[in-house]
Amino acid sequence: MSRPTAAVLLTGSELLDGRTRDRNGHYLGGTLAASGFRVDHVVLAPDDPDVLRRDLRFLLDQRPALLVTSGGLGTTHDDLTAATIAGVSGNALVSDPEALRMVTVTTRRVATRRGLAFEELLPAMARQALLPRGSRAIAPAGVAPGFALRHEATAIVALPGVPWELEAMWPDVLAAFAAEAGAAPARRLTMRIYGWGEVQVAALLDGASTERLRLAITAADGEVTITAGYDADDRAASAQADALAAALRAAAPVFSSDGRSIDFIVADLLRSQGATVALAESCTGGLLGGRLTELPGSSDYVLGGALVYADAAKHELLGVPADLVAAQGAVSEPVARAMAEGVRERLGATYGLSVTGIAGPGGATPDKPVGLVFIGCAGPGGTVVRRHEFPGDRATVRAWSVVSALHQLRRALAAGASALPPDPLVAT
Amino acid sequence: MSRPTAAVLLTGSELLDGRTRDRNGHYLGGTLAASGFRVDHVVLAPDDPDVLRRDLRFLLDQRPALLVTSGGLGTTHDDLTAATIAGVSGNALVSDPEALRMVTVTTRRVATRRGLAFEELLPAMARQALLPRGSRAIAPAGVAPGFALRHEATAIVALPGVPWELEAMWPDVLAAFAAEAGAAPARRLTMRIYGWGEVQVAALLDGASTERLRLAITAADGEVTITAGYDADDRAASAQADALAAALRAAAPVFSSDGRSIDFIVADLLRSQGATVALAESCTGGLLGGRLTELPGSSDYVLGGALVYADAAKHELLGVPADLVAAQGAVSEPVARAMAEGVRERLGATYGLSVTGIAGPGGATPDKPVGLVFIGCAGPGGTVVRRHEFPGDRATVRAWSVVSALHQLRRALAAGASALPPDPLVAT
Repeated sequence: MSRPTAAVLLTGSELLDGRTRDRNGHYLGGTLAASGFRVDHVVLAPDDPDVLRRDLRFLLDQRPALLVTSGGLGTTHDDLTAATIAGVSGNALVSDPEALRMVTVTTRRVATRRGLAFEELLPAMARQALLPRGSRAIAPAGVAPGFALRHEATAIVALPGVPWELEAMWPDVLAAFAAEAGAAPARRLTMRIYGWGEVQVAALLDGASTERLRLAITAADGEVTITAGYDADDRAASAQADALAAALRAAAPVFSSDGRSIDFIVADLLRSQGATVALAESCTGGLLGGRLTELPGSSDYVLGGALVYADAAKHELLGVPADLVAAQGAVSEPVARAMAEGVRERLGATYGLSVTGIAGPGGATPDKPVGLVFIGCAGPGGTVVRRHEFPGDRATVRAWSVVSALHQLRRALAAGASALPPDPLVAT
Repeated sequence: MSRPTAAVLLTGSELLDGRTRDRNGHYLGGTLAASGFRVDHVVLAPDDPDVLRRDLRFLLDQRPALLVTSGGLGTTHDDLTAATIAGVSGNALVSDPEALRMVTVTTRRVATRRGLAFEELLPAMARQALLPRGSRAIAPAGVAPGFALRHEATAIVALPGVPWELEAMWPDVLAAFAAEAGAAPARRLTMRIYGWGEVQVAALLDGASTERLRLAITAADGEVTITAGYDADDRAASAQADALAAALRAAAPVFSSDGRSIDFIVADLLRSQGATVALAESCTGGLLGGRLTELPGSSDYVLGGALVYADAAKHELLGVPADLVAAQGAVSEPVARAMAEGVRERLGATYGLSVTGIAGPGGATPDKPVGLVFIGCAGPGGTVVRRHEFPGDRATVRAWSVVSALHQLRRALAAGASALPPDPLVAT
């Protein structure tokens, strides 16, 4: 239980007042935890020197082995990170020769891309080479260099806030500091469940011996995830994790116990079976396709699909009979079936996957409430349509629909080309 | 400049170690700022009683007018929020009769939905009625009630972590506490720019008088946003904001100066012109459709579209000639054109919008790098195809593609049914 601790400071007023949704905290926290750090603090701070200073002081007072900051390294007046770290750590802000060399290279590239004069751009860009004395510059992936500085018990690493730049610069930095801090990748059991609510899972856990495990339950988009972290050399914890995994597998609808999310499971099943999938989306509007094509190489198994928002599009693109839609309504079992079968045939895919529902807030009728969604999966073993009533607002209904469609495809793939097993409706 | 201050504490180990990406901080921060609070602190805390206590103490030491917490109000062992607030505020944890009444009602509903016995479920659920003495229970939208408690200078409000529950419970609470804290909605000028980089915008701002404005620049997905906040009764600030807006409009490619994002602008243009749009997506995989259908009522103008990931799908769904794809490559100006025109004709839409590109990391060739994207827009005035080279990783290329497609549609809509004006390529 002696993992080195890490803290994350995300700067930018836009992260606190609703203008921008932070992405770096999630990424940094996940990679730090996977490398064996215990992430105790993630703080978002505005571009206000006083608040930034108080937050930095508070975080350094916690004496983390590693403190990572993101943002505030750019060329504008509200880029305060280097100056604030310099102040709090008692180092002067100086122009770093190595950082200046890096900035000169990137300035040349930016000038070319934007059609601007290098000499006019350089003075503003050179601000990015001002670092606390004693820092080591970190080569930029985009425009701004980062830097690393040791202060008392803590290694401070400052990275730019643009997510893809930060993500390109981070892995090498993390590897170096994880080694230095003596972080050993922790063991983590991850069990994912679909079809049960959090309270049912919690009741099951109450009877298990878990005192040596760092246990957590999270619920999102219809899935419940249980994680149990423990140190790699703790044999008693390892035995508890094994027993917990067995108990969950025996009692609950576990679909993943090796850490893979539903995205990777579906992708692996499609790829290993040489199967392809085609999509017919209505209320999800393309989000299912967006999700399935998120993984690199998804063109191996995603052929394409149809976004059939309007009823006429259902007919025109997929051959869903207009009188079927008129008689049953666009949100109905027969239409979900016709959509799945239509897109499968149209694109010659192994599986056709369809979603039609009422995401709200409008569109409900007395017998078709907001949250009513039909998901169809047509495959070699036939077509299954499942009816769901999802809770929540428009975004939630759409998110649950995407996840449930992925699970329906997973079940069809798991059953392979043979007839699909009977499958109870999921109460959600 | 005397806005009441607010702090946000988001609890849940899953938010710090990469398992779940927080959504509540973004929502709470945005609504607090819009109601006139200055959001100085957003802190993510793990389900660790010691850390949670230190974070709460730090935040209360800042003496915010309002401290909002999310999460940790459920039925599991790591739901610690009520107990920790009780400890830090020096109040005992007691079963609150009003909260218990609320929990009984929701328990009955959950039992019915999941097919469980009410009596068996109630003991676990009743934990949610344990509140710090002196609290006022807040009716739940889903399962867990929230509560409000005054402590010294600060009103503490605790809400559940499930986003849709929190978002349903929050508006009434916010309105009450904003009135109590004397928060007056601040004025905010928001100028959005597409086609310039952050460094160009920053250079323009250097010459402006902005000392009475709370100025911020953010860049994301190819857009740069400048916001200038100021107090409603500060006339000098108001004059500076007006001058800034005029200067930006004169010099930079501003597309929005009334706060609306590109989503709302495109939606309003489509609706006001009675126009419809159909989509043909390749590398974005459905994300463009997902974005366009995010707004309620989007079925008024989104007819549908085709996800044409495989070359055969381009032909089968949109009639793009197979020999055109073979000769030019799927990522090419002629194929983007054929996709846009094909989907427009197929669905009888006013506009056809297409995206084809190389999102990476694979698929690049010497003359077609990762990030190369063609976006086509076919409309009454003809078809325009624009070539982009976007920076960054797969997710970034896809995000920039979606935003750029929306801008291309905006330009076509702004030009109305007349011939499209000449439009320089955007260097990105």
